[in-house]
Amino acid sequence: MEAGADNPRCSGIGRDRKMIRQMGRPRVVIVGAGFAGLTLARSLKGASVDVTLLDRNNYHLFTPLLYQVAAAYLDPSQIANSIRALIRGIPNCDFRLADVNGVELERRVVLTDHGEVSYDQLVLCTGSGTNYFGIRGMEARSLGLKELPEAMALRNWVLERFELSRWELDPVRRRRLLSFVVVGGGPTGVEFAGALAELIRLVLRKDFRDLDLAEPRVVLLEAAGRVLGTFDPGLSEAARHSLRAKGVEVRLGAAVESVSPAGVRLGGGEQLEAGTVVWTAGVRASELGERLGVALERQARVPVGPSMQLEGHPEVFVIGDLAAARQGGEVLPMLILVAMQEARYVAAVIIAAAAGRPAPVFAYRDPGIMATIGRNAAVAQLGRVRLSGFPGWVMWLAVHLINIVSLRNRLVVLVNWAWDYLFYDRPVRLMVRAQQPRKRA
Amino acid sequence: MEAGADNPRCSGIGRDRKMIRQMGRPRVVIVGAGFAGLTLARSLKGASVDVTLLDRNNYHLFTPLLYQVAAAYLDPSQIANSIRALIRGIPNCDFRLADVNGVELERRVVLTDHGEVSYDQLVLCTGSGTNYFGIRGMEARSLGLKELPEAMALRNWVLERFELSRWELDPVRRRRLLSFVVVGGGPTGVEFAGALAELIRLVLRKDFRDLDLAEPRVVLLEAAGRVLGTFDPGLSEAARHSLRAKGVEVRLGAAVESVSPAGVRLGGGEQLEAGTVVWTAGVRASELGERLGVALERQARVPVGPSMQLEGHPEVFVIGDLAAARQGGEVLPMLILVAMQEARYVAAVIIAAAAGRPAPVFAYRDPGIMATIGRNAAVAQLGRVRLSGFPGWVMWLAVHLINIVSLRNRLVVLVNWAWDYLFYDRPVRLMVRAQQPRKRA
Repeated sequence: MEAGADNPRCSGIGRDRKMIRQMGRPRVVIVGAGFAGLTLARSLKGASVDVTLLDRNNYHLFTPLLYQVAAAYLDPSQIANSIRALIRGIPNCDFRLADVNGVELERRVVLTDHGEVSYDQLVLCTGSGTNYFGIRGMEARSLGLKELPEAMALRNWVLERFELSRWELDPVRRRRLLSFVVVGGGPTGVEFAGALAELIRLVLRKDFRDLDLAEPRVVLLEAAGRVLGTFDPGLSEAARHSLRAKGVEVRLGAAVESVSPAGVRLGGGEQLEAGTVVWTAGVRASELGERLGVALERQARVPVGPSMQLEGHPEVFVIGDLAAARQGGEVLPMLILVAMQEARYVAAVIIAAAAGRPAPVFAYRDPGIMATIGRNAAVAQLGRVRLSGFPGWVMWLAVHLINIVSLRNRLVVLVNWAWDYLFYDRPVRLMVRAQQPRKRA
Repeated sequence: MEAGADNPRCSGIGRDRKMIRQMGRPRVVIVGAGFAGLTLARSLKGASVDVTLLDRNNYHLFTPLLYQVAAAYLDPSQIANSIRALIRGIPNCDFRLADVNGVELERRVVLTDHGEVSYDQLVLCTGSGTNYFGIRGMEARSLGLKELPEAMALRNWVLERFELSRWELDPVRRRRLLSFVVVGGGPTGVEFAGALAELIRLVLRKDFRDLDLAEPRVVLLEAAGRVLGTFDPGLSEAARHSLRAKGVEVRLGAAVESVSPAGVRLGGGEQLEAGTVVWTAGVRASELGERLGVALERQARVPVGPSMQLEGHPEVFVIGDLAAARQGGEVLPMLILVAMQEARYVAAVIIAAAAGRPAPVFAYRDPGIMATIGRNAAVAQLGRVRLSGFPGWVMWLAVHLINIVSLRNRLVVLVNWAWDYLFYDRPVRLMVRAQQPRKRA
């Protein structure tokens, strides 16, 4: 009934009679509608190219606030936007929902679950996923925080622990049920652990009148000697203090050896009883990179040349978390603002090529790093500036407003969110799951 | 690890040391936190009883706007509220998340997935579910619109049909993919068909630039001779006109015989090609009624006496859609405002019993009926008043504000919604599904 992988007549965009395409205009296919892909599509607006944007979801995700969905403070639709709505104003860009499974570089086609899509120029920006480093039990028994469905599942799971705890008479089992271990002291782990501790102490305490606040436990495990290891040590210390003030137990030098139904086992043999393990400690580039037939760099990232191109294939660009782009010998970090710089640069390269001009040179600016560490507090490090607490939070907000928010309604949402977050307390805290669509006509 | 059905030590509220219970105070257990259960809990605030509210979800659902979630106009959290937040101000009411599987009337215990819960007085108000009337293929191949997960699945499904249609080259298959059959011309079917037609013509047309508006098709099937059969014929006619103006094909006298992957087959043998069938034509009381061991009335509703009590069990009340309460020989309809009247009445009966006074008499007031039929249009029938169009919509809003909305933030949401709905166009249209929590530590 539907067009699908099992439909041989569904032959992709190349032969689709409905695609309006001007003769001689190169077709640029962008795989991934994250910050890189969307910035690129916007930067190619009005250029003499036809752009096809592919993504497996129909929404673009504002990932810096994903942990807020997991902590029941934001609704999915507050951080996800319809891709089609976002590209409405770009006449030379079309969107298609598709799972991209590979690329045939020689034939210049992208392989999708709906058939092949041919390209003249291809930009791969499928981002990154989770790396479990082969830790025993971790993939099977932990909850993740990279994708929107994961964040929603984590929210449901956490709220369900508290509901289940009301039925549990055994104090040891109840305590385990209410013990939450967050593995990884990077920005995601720090942000989620802080938000979860706040949810428990500010919101759930009121919802669960008979909750003994000595029972719930939020533990943040970091294998290295400090949290936020990529930041200035002073900011790491500020983040650790802030977390402790919220009631998070921060354990440094704590490497996880294995995960079992009872909790996690640390490197030294110590057993930490926990009913919930959230894994935020490992990131690796998206699996699409493995299907390109090139040797990958650290974190499974795809090596690219100075113009973000795949070696031997100047028509194929790789940007964002998926690419191991270098600047002065250093691989650029997996950051939204880096991905957006690369996207704007590749747009300039594509536009130059269409005009027959030589490619420009990538001029990288260090965008700085920052992380929110709870209600109106953040740490920010931009050039020589180091901010923490409320000034850090204002900086976080300003940078995100200026650099990332080029979308009308995103700005409204972010301002609303900041306002609510400062002054109100109205979390979502619903356990809702869309029914699996087993039913079909 | 968790308290659960497989945990023999988990013995329910009766023995829970954490439940604060005053000696001599009757324990009232309410099963179901819909409009009946929540109204009852609120009406018992401050009474000399201890109330335990049980529900299988942790949220109360504002069902009159459920179709708006399915049509991508509202977020789940805009029509669902945390039950614990709603009862925060009721010190003598506690909430427990539980699936109730039955009642042992003689032992006065409710059977849940977390063990037994004992009661002195029990109020059952688990509402209604879907009745497929045994139509071949209907349960397996149709989408429903009674619960929040169903509405979210329907939203995802509809949006996915449009995305899939962009890959489909065959016009016949594409037209089937974009044909939506809504079965049932009651309020839910009328409201959803209208909202879906509006979504397509006002929103999706802009999102899908190459969409040929002649292809999508919304068909509303009603077996009887008019839609909104419980309303005045003039209002049925107004609704039909309104639907046709929105582009809905209204087919009257059209009974569905069977559903197949190709679409629906009507009574006369006509085959209607459709990729989506939404079933709104059958309602029956919740299955809990079948487990009471009493003979059920029409629509599987539980017969009750004039004080809403189960025959032979004056300590057990049944109200709302689950109950076949009678007034002047007529069974009261399945309406929110009826359920709320019954709940307030049963609260008075329980309070009178606790004070040793005789039970009051149920004084039923006909609350009228109304249905929204799209953007700022509704039909309303209250006593001798008949309204349609915008006046009907204002009446709908006023009645819901006054009679149903006794919750602070619900009022804010409803006013916001009305405002947005009148003046803006910002649907959600995301295909998001919470990951199934296969992962657990």
